[in-house]
Amino acid sequence: MDFKTLLSNRRSIRDFQDRDVPLPVIQEILEDTCLAPTASNGQPCRFIIIRNREVMKRISDESKGNLLADIAGNPDAPIKIYEAALRDDAFNVFYNAPCLILIIGSQEVLSLEIDCALTAAYLMFSAASRGLGTCWVALGARIRNPEILREIGIPKGCAIVAPVILGYPKAVPPASARHMPDIVREI
Amino acid sequence: MDFKTLLSNRRSIRDFQDRDVPLPVIQEILEDTCLAPTASNGQPCRFIIIRNREVMKRISDESKGNLLADIAGNPDAPIKIYEAALRDDAFNVFYNAPCLILIIGSQEVLSLEIDCALTAAYLMFSAASRGLGTCWVALGARIRNPEILREIGIPKGCAIVAPVILGYPKAVPPASARHMPDIVREI
Repeated sequence: MDFKTLLSNRRSIRDFQDRDVPLPVIQEILEDTCLAPTASNGQPCRFIIIRNREVMKRISDESKGNLLADIAGNPDAPIKIYEAALRDDAFNVFYNAPCLILIIGSQEVLSLEIDCALTAAYLMFSAASRGLGTCWVALGARIRNPEILREIGIPKGCAIVAPVILGYPKAVPPASARHMPDIVREI
Repeated sequence: MDFKTLLSNRRSIRDFQDRDVPLPVIQEILEDTCLAPTASNGQPCRFIIIRNREVMKRISDESKGNLLADIAGNPDAPIKIYEAALRDDAFNVFYNAPCLILIIGSQEVLSLEIDCALTAAYLMFSAASRGLGTCWVALGARIRNPEILREIGIPKGCAIVAPVILGYPKAVPPASARHMPDIVREI
């Protein structure tokens, strides 16, 4: 798959075939992500692979509840645009995807957000190159319940930076509207 | 260029041919970056293109001085591992690359670091697909001098997230050592 095709295939996918993603495929994708650049080659990213839909549903419900509580505490929060969706019991933030990868890492790493985002980009491109679809679902990261944190295995001191769903897309939609590059100055 | 080749060609490049990068090539690369996913499709990334080596040298000197001052103020700063290099007058943090792209954005955007990192990953892959090399040079972002900020056109309230050098590599080195994916749990 050449780069232009890869670019047009890397879309945010929110509608998946009812088809599991085999573990060896996930392993290959995660191996590709290890080639991502990280600050001082620190490689701080760790992964949790979730293919159990009941666990994903529990994370979705937990995150929705916490986001709604955050909105109640701060009506100016940018997340407020999602309030109606979050109140909808039928809405699963993971769009019923067959797999969720959590990219996590120690909060002591200053570059953690950037390192995990670069790693997530590798994950998304690697998945697209194999005909799989992904979507970074920021709404799925607000987990506070210690029982759920224990169940999914988040080590102490670690934060979830990138919750990325993974599966075989029903279709690859065209890109949503984009503006041209905003070039402030050319020197 | 297929994905495996792209993966092996996206290396951090620190040694460049003495050959300018034409503006239309930079424009094409920046257009590709606009396809990067950003939180709620907010597209907050803006770009400054610098091909003037004197300006790049001024930014390098300014950033080195500020980093050394930061180390003096906090000897435990992780940046201390670079102290010897920063004290070397001959060391240009941009490795004498012919071009520097600053990815910047408003500090009011909560997801700015993540959005810019995803955009930088697109920039690096797009460049690699065209035979160009890049390196995210975090050492080049510590600019405080208002005159330099004005000269390079950083708008008020904006932060430099990703300073990425760009040029034609003398060679594409093999990947630096990587560990296998650190899978904490599989559910």
